[in-house]
Amino acid sequence: MRPMGDDPTFADVRAAAERIAPYVHRTPVATCASINRMAGCSLHFKCEHVQKVGAFKARGATNAVFSLSDEEADRGVCTHSSGNHAAALARAAGLRGIPAHIVMPSSAPPVKKAAVAGYGALITECEPTLEAREATLAEVQRRTGATFVHPYDDPRVIAGQGTAALELLGDVPNLDGVLAPVGGGGLASGTVLAVTAFAPGVEVWGAEPAGADDAFRSLRDGRRYPSVAPTTIADGLLTSLSDRTFRILRGGLAGILTVDDEAIVRAMRLLWERAKLLVEPSSAVPLAAVLADPSRFAGRRVGVILSGGNVDLDRLPW
Amino acid sequence: MRPMGDDPTFADVRAAAERIAPYVHRTPVATCASINRMAGCSLHFKCEHVQKVGAFKARGATNAVFSLSDEEADRGVCTHSSGNHAAALARAAGLRGIPAHIVMPSSAPPVKKAAVAGYGALITECEPTLEAREATLAEVQRRTGATFVHPYDDPRVIAGQGTAALELLGDVPNLDGVLAPVGGGGLASGTVLAVTAFAPGVEVWGAEPAGADDAFRSLRDGRRYPSVAPTTIADGLLTSLSDRTFRILRGGLAGILTVDDEAIVRAMRLLWERAKLLVEPSSAVPLAAVLADPSRFAGRRVGVILSGGNVDLDRLPW
Repeated sequence: MRPMGDDPTFADVRAAAERIAPYVHRTPVATCASINRMAGCSLHFKCEHVQKVGAFKARGATNAVFSLSDEEADRGVCTHSSGNHAAALARAAGLRGIPAHIVMPSSAPPVKKAAVAGYGALITECEPTLEAREATLAEVQRRTGATFVHPYDDPRVIAGQGTAALELLGDVPNLDGVLAPVGGGGLASGTVLAVTAFAPGVEVWGAEPAGADDAFRSLRDGRRYPSVAPTTIADGLLTSLSDRTFRILRGGLAGILTVDDEAIVRAMRLLWERAKLLVEPSSAVPLAAVLADPSRFAGRRVGVILSGGNVDLDRLPW
Repeated sequence: MRPMGDDPTFADVRAAAERIAPYVHRTPVATCASINRMAGCSLHFKCEHVQKVGAFKARGATNAVFSLSDEEADRGVCTHSSGNHAAALARAAGLRGIPAHIVMPSSAPPVKKAAVAGYGALITECEPTLEAREATLAEVQRRTGATFVHPYDDPRVIAGQGTAALELLGDVPNLDGVLAPVGGGGLASGTVLAVTAFAPGVEVWGAEPAGADDAFRSLRDGRRYPSVAPTTIADGLLTSLSDRTFRILRGGLAGILTVDDEAIVRAMRLLWERAKLLVEPSSAVPLAAVLADPSRFAGRRVGVILSGGNVDLDRLPW
């Protein structure tokens, strides 16, 4: 992989690991004998669902916030997100004692707004359209001078997300492969950076819902497609790759595996029932991909990044 | 505490830790900032819900099976249980390559029978009465010569259960107290043995459902009451203390705290929602007790043993 411009490198992942260590969990790695028997391989689950804010997003957002100069930091950070990145950025800004401005669609669930507000962020609501979101964010930036921290198209964020794989490689020797879910590609890109440099020869695979397979098609055709009208239960994986994440994934992934929602729900339930790991649907996509074609990983040692655990307990998908 | 007869000691807990290490997980310890804020203290959750068979019971059963002489082992082990102990004993016997005979009431849920049979155990059904259970077990013992491994009234089992607290104390320095749920008292007794010797000065508290408070009343009155017609959602905590566990708990517990089912369900949901820890109701009893009277542990460092995670995902209590 040839990095371009300000693409992050392995050195950035290493620096991120040191920078964020005081502020995030070093999450455990879990194994489950009965799931291993079903999969015919040895799976090592990196438990980012028990990470701060319940998702790996705490890593990238924290790295971005603590990478700012004091002068930048004084003006705060901003982003648009109604999900885990908003909570993660709000939390990180709170830890550094600087303002976080979050643009959220007026349609976002009240519980998500409350979570972000609970971390002390300033929420600006906008109409639930792409145009309104970008215009509102631009206005916030103009008014405050805050630094925009994109949910995934940001080298500091990508480097931060890569620290999960770095810990996994350190804790579990002799892996043959690592799987991560692919949405905007931030986690998968960071995983590529970490694995390619730290454990060359270990394959990195992406996993994507069939109903949101823009990254799969983009890599297959060598051109970046946007994610148009995706439909999947894995609601953390609806977004499109950026030029940057497309470039990194194209250079470093062994491939992207796709699975339908039924397989995702089945894998999620297995993780709950057999392994007692309370993950959200997006986290179950890599396991669903392994179980869909066990021959690919038969007898091998495989790391799986469980991305998060933020799920509505009153509306479980079974 | 004065040990009597074959009561287990701290040396037995140490020996158990070494004996079972190849066969059970060293489980992680989890923390959750938002639950700490609600509780006003620093809680360290020992995650036995991700233990083998989904419960701490794997420890005691494994210690019992691997403590047998080869001659004893050849004749196998037996027990009566429809729950986690049956699965744990069946698994441990399978690891040693010896037979496990499990007496289960004919009314036990098919899924539990299937789990035990899946570990290769031989199931003998009986009428769902105490008399039938004991008669059937005696018959199995007569026929096979198998060693009876009681779910909690057994020194090898108690010593094994104590290894969870031993690991917790090793991983989290400077605890002020440790809480464990109390059913038959095996886990709480093992915890007392480990903490009293390894970290004298650290208080051990039991926690019990108000609807099954026989241990609370027994310790209060200094005489052992049986658990009669208990009603609680914490279905792992219905059993009575034995003379042995009563003696150990009486000598070593700072006290037993009781909480009603509503508080237990609330605490369980907090553990799921905030900490992403998929525990069964019995595991939530100690947290419910902390939250019911935060003044008791205010500002202190408290270990909490989460006993298990075997819960019916189709029948959640909220």
